Amino acid sequence: MATQNEIDAMRRAVALAARGLGSTSPNPVVGCVVLDAAGNVVGEGWHERAGEPHAEIHALRAAGERARGGTVVVTLEPCNHTGRTGPCARALIEAGVRRVVAAVPDPYAPAAGGAETLRAAGIEVELGVLAAEAERVNEAWLTFVRLGRPFVTWKYGASLDGRIAAADGTSRWITSSESRADAHRLRAESDAVVVGSGTRRADDPHLAVRDAPAARQPLRVVVDTEARTPLDARVLDAAAPTLIAVAEDVDTPPYPCEVVRLPRAERGLDLKALLAALKDRDVVSVLLEGGPTLAGSFLAADLVDRVVGYVAPVLIGGGGLPALAGPGAPTIGAARRFRLDDVTRIGPDVRIVARPERKES
Amino acid sequence: MATQNEIDAMRRAVALAARGLGSTSPNPVVGCVVLDAAGNVVGEGWHERAGEPHAEIHALRAAGERARGGTVVVTLEPCNHTGRTGPCARALIEAGVRRVVAAVPDPYAPAAGGAETLRAAGIEVELGVLAAEAERVNEAWLTFVRLGRPFVTWKYGASLDGRIAAADGTSRWITSSESRADAHRLRAESDAVVVGSGTRRADDPHLAVRDAPAARQPLRVVVDTEARTPLDARVLDAAAPTLIAVAEDVDTPPYPCEVVRLPRAERGLDLKALLAALKDRDVVSVLLEGGPTLAGSFLAADLVDRVVGYVAPVLIGGGGLPALAGPGAPTIGAARRFRLDDVTRIGPDVRIVARPERKES
Repeated sequence: MATQNEIDAMRRAVALAARGLGSTSPNPVVGCVVLDAAGNVVGEGWHERAGEPHAEIHALRAAGERARGGTVVVTLEPCNHTGRTGPCARALIEAGVRRVVAAVPDPYAPAAGGAETLRAAGIEVELGVLAAEAERVNEAWLTFVRLGRPFVTWKYGASLDGRIAAADGTSRWITSSESRADAHRLRAESDAVVVGSGTRRADDPHLAVRDAPAARQPLRVVVDTEARTPLDARVLDAAAPTLIAVAEDVDTPPYPCEVVRLPRAERGLDLKALLAALKDRDVVSVLLEGGPTLAGSFLAADLVDRVVGYVAPVLIGGGGLPALAGPGAPTIGAARRFRLDDVTRIGPDVRIVARPERKES
Repeated sequence: MATQNEIDAMRRAVALAARGLGSTSPNPVVGCVVLDAAGNVVGEGWHERAGEPHAEIHALRAAGERARGGTVVVTLEPCNHTGRTGPCARALIEAGVRRVVAAVPDPYAPAAGGAETLRAAGIEVELGVLAAEAERVNEAWLTFVRLGRPFVTWKYGASLDGRIAAADGTSRWITSSESRADAHRLRAESDAVVVGSGTRRADDPHLAVRDAPAARQPLRVVVDTEARTPLDARVLDAAAPTLIAVAEDVDTPPYPCEVVRLPRAERGLDLKALLAALKDRDVVSVLLEGGPTLAGSFLAADLVDRVVGYVAPVLIGGGGLPALAGPGAPTIGAARRFRLDDVTRIGPDVRIVARPERKES
């Protein structure tokens, strides 16, 4: 059984892990806290970037000799393989720790087996502590490993009556600056930001993260079946990398960015092929920012893992653009059911986070 | 300055007042707590029904002789007039109370002046204690007195994407049983329940309150410009009174209920005339239950005082019926702005309560 002190340390480790969101792909986010033999916190760390040391290594370095006989609390089972960095299991053995408390078993086959290796070396190992919280912070990576595709978040900002623009197409601003700042944070935590050609045309969005170094910019993706994005689109500037996804059979202008050709689906492009193309580019988390038709296609293909809606206390009424378009549910029994996971007031608005009902994570 | 004990008593008085919602019209709801000279609660009461004793009288009767030298805490300034019951100001003087603490000054001219009468009799009077809470519980009646029309609540139950039915018109059930029970309570607290002819036709709603005595049933109102409600509509049964509002120039079948003829507006009926007709029938609070077009007309006429939305974590998508129809905002600057007053999770859903931004109450 984990002690209360260890559970508190795990909560801290989950918060440390979250600092890596947006920069560790294709690796997981991981946080680690080292307790000395008396239970005092003597080291902390998190995995900051793919190719750099794992969380345990940072935390052990901070702890130094005080780790000996102590307990390492970590959000993911320590890895057992020698990737770009050495295996963490070995580092923990060498540091002489007495006990390891981990939240989530490593589902990634090449890295698994860390717990076994530790136990064989006489270290006490406990798995599953605060597993739900630790799964949540790593849900994108866990989806990536388990389903073999990026984790997709559909984000929208709408009026109380579910509209994202007035009859004339104007939408600035339905939601508050507080909501928009919160949504910007979502973007910064994502590996790719995806928009459809309608949103590209209507808003000419830039999609980059303000004040972020180029290395931390998400990949900007335009789903543009007919290759209609003009060469002067803002999304084609040098602020961040861009990918234009077009149908296999269209001619494209000389885009100054990567272009990927995908099979057509009944409507638009084959979205599974799009996600596979993104997976090949180490995209673990996708933020779907618009618009209603593309969101409808992702939903119809059962490819939305999380919905984040910013709802403003505004009523737009008839003629306004609905947040969700596309085929839709022909009858109420066919409507997609989600589970409300979080409802938080953000400035004058409310943020609603929902996940598919069928999912366990 | 009110003591903490008096503020606590006022909070209790507001809760007592709420028990009268739905049965006191055209009177306000009022709650009252009597404290003895030592500050102990010795009597409680609320106004239960028009024509029956006021809250103060109930509370003074409960307190008996212990009210002498004590403090009466009441949500509305005690009345000064002899309506169907005697003036409360006189009853308080006769009971020998030392002090009266009231939340909201009486805005109804014929009854006002209670505080003055009390002071002239040597009683200490303090007004304004917990006034915001007490205004809120009485907002329907205060609107009725101040604006000369019923207070209008628009209630809807929708999906996350703002739809109230799927493409084929099915809507049972988008929201949970918990949300529907909560909405039923709203209905029980209202003097009238209003639907448009589209909702009447689509759902054939009954609109009565389950398990309520006939005397507590809200007036069922169908806004039916062309008098298309059939004689076998459920809303025409004997479970509760019904009013059919039609245009001045249409022929009506022999409805077994009251019919009111109103001028036409650009779309449908003149809603101000409708509210005036309801006011004439002592309707202080109106619950607008559907549908999207009627709600759009009320909004366009600036006649919505409160929005209560039950939002379920469901996505319906294209083809679904939007919660709000009618003219709508041509551009985003013209959209109606509200203020979120309450966001509460109700079972698996979220209830959002908003009021117009311009209103002070």
